[in-house]
Amino acid sequence: MTSGGRPLREVGEEALIEQIARLVATTCPRVRIGIGDDAAVWRPHAGHELVVTTDTLIERIHFRLEWTDWATLGHKALAVNLSDIAAMGALPRLAVVDLALRGTERDRDVADFYRGAQALARRFGVAIVGGDTTRSPLGVAISVTVIGESPRDGRPLLRRDAGRPGDVIGVTGPLGLAAAGLRVLERGLKTLDGNPVMQERYHRPEPRVREALLLRRCGVRAAMDISDGLLGDLEKLCRASGVSAIVDTLRVPVPNAVKWGFPDWEELALRGGDDYELLFTAPPHVFARVQRAFARAGMLPPRAIGQLIEAGTAGPVVQLRDAAGRCRPVEARGYDHFRAG
Amino acid sequence: MTSGGRPLREVGEEALIEQIARLVATTCPRVRIGIGDDAAVWRPHAGHELVVTTDTLIERIHFRLEWTDWATLGHKALAVNLSDIAAMGALPRLAVVDLALRGTERDRDVADFYRGAQALARRFGVAIVGGDTTRSPLGVAISVTVIGESPRDGRPLLRRDAGRPGDVIGVTGPLGLAAAGLRVLERGLKTLDGNPVMQERYHRPEPRVREALLLRRCGVRAAMDISDGLLGDLEKLCRASGVSAIVDTLRVPVPNAVKWGFPDWEELALRGGDDYELLFTAPPHVFARVQRAFARAGMLPPRAIGQLIEAGTAGPVVQLRDAAGRCRPVEARGYDHFRAG
Repeated sequence: MTSGGRPLREVGEEALIEQIARLVATTCPRVRIGIGDDAAVWRPHAGHELVVTTDTLIERIHFRLEWTDWATLGHKALAVNLSDIAAMGALPRLAVVDLALRGTERDRDVADFYRGAQALARRFGVAIVGGDTTRSPLGVAISVTVIGESPRDGRPLLRRDAGRPGDVIGVTGPLGLAAAGLRVLERGLKTLDGNPVMQERYHRPEPRVREALLLRRCGVRAAMDISDGLLGDLEKLCRASGVSAIVDTLRVPVPNAVKWGFPDWEELALRGGDDYELLFTAPPHVFARVQRAFARAGMLPPRAIGQLIEAGTAGPVVQLRDAAGRCRPVEARGYDHFRAG
Repeated sequence: MTSGGRPLREVGEEALIEQIARLVATTCPRVRIGIGDDAAVWRPHAGHELVVTTDTLIERIHFRLEWTDWATLGHKALAVNLSDIAAMGALPRLAVVDLALRGTERDRDVADFYRGAQALARRFGVAIVGGDTTRSPLGVAISVTVIGESPRDGRPLLRRDAGRPGDVIGVTGPLGLAAAGLRVLERGLKTLDGNPVMQERYHRPEPRVREALLLRRCGVRAAMDISDGLLGDLEKLCRASGVSAIVDTLRVPVPNAVKWGFPDWEELALRGGDDYELLFTAPPHVFARVQRAFARAGMLPPRAIGQLIEAGTAGPVVQLRDAAGRCRPVEARGYDHFRAG
C-alpha cells in the first residue's frame, strides 16, 4: 500500500529511531531508561516471577502487506506475544520490537506500525522500551519479545503440562473466525456475510489477558493459547501432560457466520489457527467456579468442549466424538512451519 | 555450506524444538520454566534493575552463509546482544532466540547454531530460555533478546548521556580488526598476514562484560559499545551528552596487521564497525583509577584516545587531531542501515 511520508532512505536510521521513541514514549516510573541507549532499564516488582516470550512474523508467511495496513500489523505483532504471556496467567509489562524493513517503506508506515502496537500496549499497561530497526531487502521481518510479571502468590502459573485425567477442556471464545478471515482474504470474498468480523479477528486478535488472570484466580492450572489450531494445540497440551483427550465436536463454539459461509466450517474451527482464544483444562468443580466467576465479571463464560482422560498404551491421543457418541482419533497435526508450503 | 543432518522439512517443527531444548537445557534454579511452554519463567533477584536489549541479524545484510558456519553465527547473534548489556555495565542473565529459516537448512545447521550460542552463553552465565523457530523462504533472520541484571548498589548504570566536558575518552581494545576481517572476506585475501585474527574478530566478537563491570566499579558513568564504528558511535555519545569531542588520531589503537595490510587502515579503525570494544568517557582521575584496576586484574588497560569538550554554538561535533595538533571536524556518520546500499 502506498502512503504519505518520506522514504526511509531519505529519512535515515537515526531520525527514524527518534520518531519511534516519541511515539512509544512512556511515563511509567519503573522504566528508567527507554529507547536511545544500548539497552532499556526497568525495575521489576520484588518477589514477582518474570515471564518471557518472543514471536516472529515474516512477510508472506505470517502476513501480506497487500492485505493489511501497518497499524494493524503493529497490533498483531504485539498481540500474539501478549497472548503467550496471557497463556501463562501473567501480566504483560515490557516489549521490545525488532523491525527489519525493505528500505522502500515510508517513515509514515513505520510510525503507523508503532501507533498500532502502542495503542494495544497502552490498553494492557505495556511499555515498548526498545528495539532494533534494520534493513532486510527481501522482505519485512518483525520480532517482538514481551516480558510479563506474575506475583508469587502461591498460585501456580498456567502450564501446558498440568492437565489431568478427568479435567474438563474449555475454550474462552468461538473458534474458526480467524481462519475464515484468512480464507476471505485469500479468495477475495468481500461480499460474504460476517466478513468484517472474520477479517478483524484474523488481523487484530485480542489477547485474553483478563480471562487468563481470572482462570488462574479460580484455580485453573493448565492452559495455552490457540495459535496453531485447536486440535494441534490440544495435542501439544496432551503430550506435555501425558494424557489423552476427547473433544465433543458439537460443543466446539463456532459462529454461525463461519458455518453459513463455508461448507468445511468444522475444519476451520478445529484446525484453523490465529484465533488466540485460550485453551484450558480444569477439574469439574474448578470449571464450574470459572463459569460463575466469568458470569459475575460480565464476561462470556468459557465453553466446555470435552474432557481429558488417561492416556492409553499408545500414548496421548486426541479423539473427536460426534453427536451419536462415536469416537474417532484425529491426525492432530497443527500448522508446521517447515512442513507447510 | 552443506553439512550432515536431515532437511528441516523432514524433521518438522516439533522435533526441531525438542532438539533445541536439549541443546540449551539449563540447570539454573532461577529458570522455573524453559523451552516448551508458551513462555519461559524466571525469578529475578530482588532489588536489581533489569536491562533489556535486542538485535536482529539479516542474511546478506549482517552475515553471509558462504562466509560463516552456523556455530559462528550462533556466537555472533548472541555476542552482539551481550555487548549491549555490557555497555550498560550490567550482567547478562537470559536470552531468547528467534530463528527464521529458509527451510532448506539441515537440522544439524540449527543444532550447530544453538551450540555456538550456548557455548558463549555458558561462559557468561546466560540461560537460553526460549525462542521461536519459523520459516522465511527468502532469507535467514535472527533476532535475539537478552535480559540482564544490575544490582541497585548506588552506582549508576553506564549511559550514553553521561559524558561531561573534560572527560578522557577511552576504548577497551584495538579497533579496525573486524572491519579488516570483513575486507578480507569480501576480497578473498586469504594469504594476508593476520587474516585469521581479523576474521575471528569479525565473526566472533567478544562481549566486554567483565571490562564493563570493572569500569562501573571504578566510577565510570558514560559508555557504549562500538558496533557501527568509533566516530559514528562517539558522535552518538556526544549528542546524547550534549558535548563535543577531540580524538587524537595517533592514539587510536590499531593493530599492526591492519596497518600493514590496508593503506586505508585509518578509515577501518575510525569508521569500521563490528569490533564491539567499549567506548567510555571519565574524568582524568577516574580514568587513572580504571587503568590501575585493569592492570591489577591482569587485563590490558584501556587506551585514552582523546577528550570531551564543551559543545560550541554549532552543537556537538567530533574532531580529529593529527600529530601536529591540527584539528579537523569529521563527517562522523556511522553505518546507516537505510542509507547504505
